[in-house]
Amino acid sequence: MTQKAFQDHYPDHLSHCYGCGRLNVHGWHLKSYWEGEETVARFKPQDYHIAMEGFVYGGLIASIIDCHGIATAVATLYREQRGSDCQPAAYVTASLHVEYIQPIPIGHVLEVRGKVREVKGHRIVVAVTVSAQREICAVGEVTGAPY
Amino acid sequence: MTQKAFQDHYPDHLSHCYGCGRLNVHGWHLKSYWEGEETVARFKPQDYHIAMEGFVYGGLIASIIDCHGIATAVATLYREQRGSDCQPAAYVTASLHVEYIQPIPIGHVLEVRGKVREVKGHRIVVAVTVSAQREICAVGEVTGAPY
Repeated sequence: MTQKAFQDHYPDHLSHCYGCGRLNVHGWHLKSYWEGEETVARFKPQDYHIAMEGFVYGGLIASIIDCHGIATAVATLYREQRGSDCQPAAYVTASLHVEYIQPIPIGHVLEVRGKVREVKGHRIVVAVTVSAQREICAVGEVTGAPY
Repeated sequence: MTQKAFQDHYPDHLSHCYGCGRLNVHGWHLKSYWEGEETVARFKPQDYHIAMEGFVYGGLIASIIDCHGIATAVATLYREQRGSDCQPAAYVTASLHVEYIQPIPIGHVLEVRGKVREVKGHRIVVAVTVSAQREICAVGEVTGAPY
């Protein structure tokens, strides 16, 4: 059975995100899934999503970390609380931090991995890595707050 | 005399950035300028650059903070060192931090303001704010490292 992406569980009115909403026809449609105890999304940037020739645009990296981080927060809470895979999106980004470790070459599928690091009151902190060709190129932290 | 944007001083091989490169035909073409001791960029998101209906996508906010921060670092160093307005881009983003203070309504020109906060060795830290309708909605910090 094919697993349904977290974002495809979001209700229609929360499915217009430019980064990951299934109803945004101009958007990037990032899709996040469970893979064991981690979450994963795989995304191939377009050839024009560059910072300089040959390397992926850092703003795109920040964006997919943001979307995957929030999706991970939502799915983790839902699994803990309801025993299923996802709940309607109910979090927005309060803060986003990205460390760019090395330039990311364009032309590859990026692997984005997430895991909840901490729950602070109503806020959830998610750690995210972005890899190309099995090397971690960027790490991020997303803090989600209830919407 | 109309001031030329920092990004329009970048040499051709550094002008393909998806966020601000003048030669990226698919890109967003953010343009940064001096305004007194601060730098400023004004940018109107497209109506599909949303996180949810009515509000600007956080990944776009992170992206324009990144591009404007790096442009501010480059221009500030050039002004200090060379007495002119800009030098060819020679910095990449080492880290990016964004605090989302309040949702940003779509449909307005965003004002992005930057100022160098600190020089740490070869690294430069730039503080950036993003405002809509004169209210600050997000604050960011960009650390640029030599390319």
